[in-house]
Amino acid sequence: MSVVVQKYGGSSLGGVARLNAVAARIALTRQRTERVVVVVSAMGDTTDELIALAHQLDDDPPSREMDMLLSTGETVTAPLLAMALHARGVPAVSLTGMQAGIRTSGAHRSARITDIVPQRVIEQLSTGRVVIVAGFQGATEQLDVTTLGRGGSDTTAVALAVALQAHECEIYTDVAGIHSADPRLVADARPIGLLGYDEMLEMAAAGATVMHPRAVEIGEAYSMPIRVRSAFGDGPGTLIRRHQPMEDRPKVRGIAHETDVAKVTLLGVPDRPGIAAAVFGPLGESHVNVDIIVQNVSHSGHTDLSFTVAESDLNRAQPVLDRIAADVGADGVDADRGIAKVTVVGAGILGTPGVCARIFETLAGELINIRMISTGEIRVTCIIDRDRVADAVRALHRAFELELL
Amino acid sequence: MSVVVQKYGGSSLGGVARLNAVAARIALTRQRTERVVVVVSAMGDTTDELIALAHQLDDDPPSREMDMLLSTGETVTAPLLAMALHARGVPAVSLTGMQAGIRTSGAHRSARITDIVPQRVIEQLSTGRVVIVAGFQGATEQLDVTTLGRGGSDTTAVALAVALQAHECEIYTDVAGIHSADPRLVADARPIGLLGYDEMLEMAAAGATVMHPRAVEIGEAYSMPIRVRSAFGDGPGTLIRRHQPMEDRPKVRGIAHETDVAKVTLLGVPDRPGIAAAVFGPLGESHVNVDIIVQNVSHSGHTDLSFTVAESDLNRAQPVLDRIAADVGADGVDADRGIAKVTVVGAGILGTPGVCARIFETLAGELINIRMISTGEIRVTCIIDRDRVADAVRALHRAFELELL
Repeated sequence: MSVVVQKYGGSSLGGVARLNAVAARIALTRQRTERVVVVVSAMGDTTDELIALAHQLDDDPPSREMDMLLSTGETVTAPLLAMALHARGVPAVSLTGMQAGIRTSGAHRSARITDIVPQRVIEQLSTGRVVIVAGFQGATEQLDVTTLGRGGSDTTAVALAVALQAHECEIYTDVAGIHSADPRLVADARPIGLLGYDEMLEMAAAGATVMHPRAVEIGEAYSMPIRVRSAFGDGPGTLIRRHQPMEDRPKVRGIAHETDVAKVTLLGVPDRPGIAAAVFGPLGESHVNVDIIVQNVSHSGHTDLSFTVAESDLNRAQPVLDRIAADVGADGVDADRGIAKVTVVGAGILGTPGVCARIFETLAGELINIRMISTGEIRVTCIIDRDRVADAVRALHRAFELELL
Repeated sequence: MSVVVQKYGGSSLGGVARLNAVAARIALTRQRTERVVVVVSAMGDTTDELIALAHQLDDDPPSREMDMLLSTGETVTAPLLAMALHARGVPAVSLTGMQAGIRTSGAHRSARITDIVPQRVIEQLSTGRVVIVAGFQGATEQLDVTTLGRGGSDTTAVALAVALQAHECEIYTDVAGIHSADPRLVADARPIGLLGYDEMLEMAAAGATVMHPRAVEIGEAYSMPIRVRSAFGDGPGTLIRRHQPMEDRPKVRGIAHETDVAKVTLLGVPDRPGIAAAVFGPLGESHVNVDIIVQNVSHSGHTDLSFTVAESDLNRAQPVLDRIAADVGADGVDADRGIAKVTVVGAGILGTPGVCARIFETLAGELINIRMISTGEIRVTCIIDRDRVADAVRALHRAFELELL
């Protein structure tokens, strides 16, 4: 049987009018495909409101109780959408994550899907019903409700698509796909037609937040194509799938950027084995994610160690950094908040002559100073001053002719 | 183990301040009793709001989907209350009806409890946690969510108290107990200290809506004492349990009244066997509940058949009544909307000389005309004009000295 899995995000589902619009779209899908599974998020700001209410009652609410509470957001959307379909004459049934057979670990608020046993979904599909599954949630073997954490509903959708052997997984959102650059910065940014999983992962890591990496990783692991498209328009969106044929010339796919970045430098660190572990171990334990790391050439046995963290983590990181600096015998800690990250993504670009050069020339032509550089197989990242980030993204978008995509 | 089961209604749970007040009360209970189970309703008007939202999307929403939707009201309250307890240092865990082992029939929106398998509740109690159970909901064997219909959370509480062999079941509400008459009509109405199950059932049927008959029936079937008391005060409230010792003199316990009443008369009905079935069968099929039935003496083979229905059902009943009148060959149908029902309740009062007489004398003394009379083992009901109902209740309350209870 050929199954279509669609996922609708919270911004597409807030309020009666939007629920009806989504129902109308599903009804159309139903005309061309018999078996439709829909994964839904909580409506609008419901999740944030529930979190705020919880924190009014308890500074540190137990995560099991938070899961019980937050899962209701999606559990409300699912039957409402089923009703909107029913009112259109389209038979539909809503299922919780538990009912849809989504089994997870017991790590509340960031549970991992361990298995999907989609018997009820298959049964309901075979009776001709559209199956609406509450996203973001699952259940342990003890039938405790869990939530999957960030990117949870996308993860539910892709995992269900895999379990149901769907042709592809459609992610409906409030933008027309993954853009060649942020459309708020670049007027002629275009949705990228085709993107490899690894390219999508790099775009996401570099600040393109439309798709959470977690769902993309599942897609990659099981070769499930993921189409990201607008819930409000009719464009084809972005199809994320395995790389195009090898003879295709590698090229730049998109420019991502991120402004929640701060640069930290440990000054005069003794250059000896084990120093990286001594620095990054404690940061990891404090849940401070370190991004780009640059170690300068050593002079007389000492070096400066620079790395970026999310600026929003910096206050939390500061005491840990001070302790680390004392422990490793560094001369001090410097933190620079006024920076941003610009990343050029495309399969094979690092091995392609001329791409790196064109990036650096383009930024130089705009008189933009590059503070740090980090490269990966399919990306080049530059740390620059934050007040130049829009200029950098526009210039790079133009330089690689991404408006012609 | 000695378990206390407490139930808190929606008006006691709306908003952060009330949740905290309930948590404080539970924390106090926890100091005197180790094992506390709390059943909660949806907060404030949540259920009504969800119903309204559903009807905006679908005129006739499938009842399975309504149950999925409505059950979230209670599922939100339970973890929030657990958090409010956690913030006070009282360990607590929330359970859905399904997790608490409440198994029901598949009759969505009015499911019946078939069994309670409270293993998880017992396990959690033995770890020292207060167990918060989402009321009003259960699950079928297929793990479909069901709701119990009217009086659902009270029913959950009493049924759980039975399953856990609790000492008694405490129902916390926004009034101080079952009153000797409606305190809005009678200033010196008092909470009744002790009430038999049958007395409570008669009071409920006669208009005292604090407790739903369904939960009382379970209490009676399993001899589970039910205490109704205020969530905001410290009074002992009303204890509903098996009758007091036989040597106690029967006496009047309370005066209930109901104004949603209309009187229907089928005029000139041929007086032959099977006529009652021909009249009340179709009404029952149309879900019109008939209350008091009076058949006048037959004259020349014809009689007038009068009965009361809820006035709010009258419009729906009208076409059915017209059809019945034609079918049985009656002369016509009369409907009288301006009436009310006043009921005097007390174990054994019908067999006690003087009680009936005093009721009729009291109403006569107030120049209140009695339109119909109906009696039961432990109650006497009079149908009177609606504009005299407050006078009737006050006079009867005074006549039986209920302010001295």
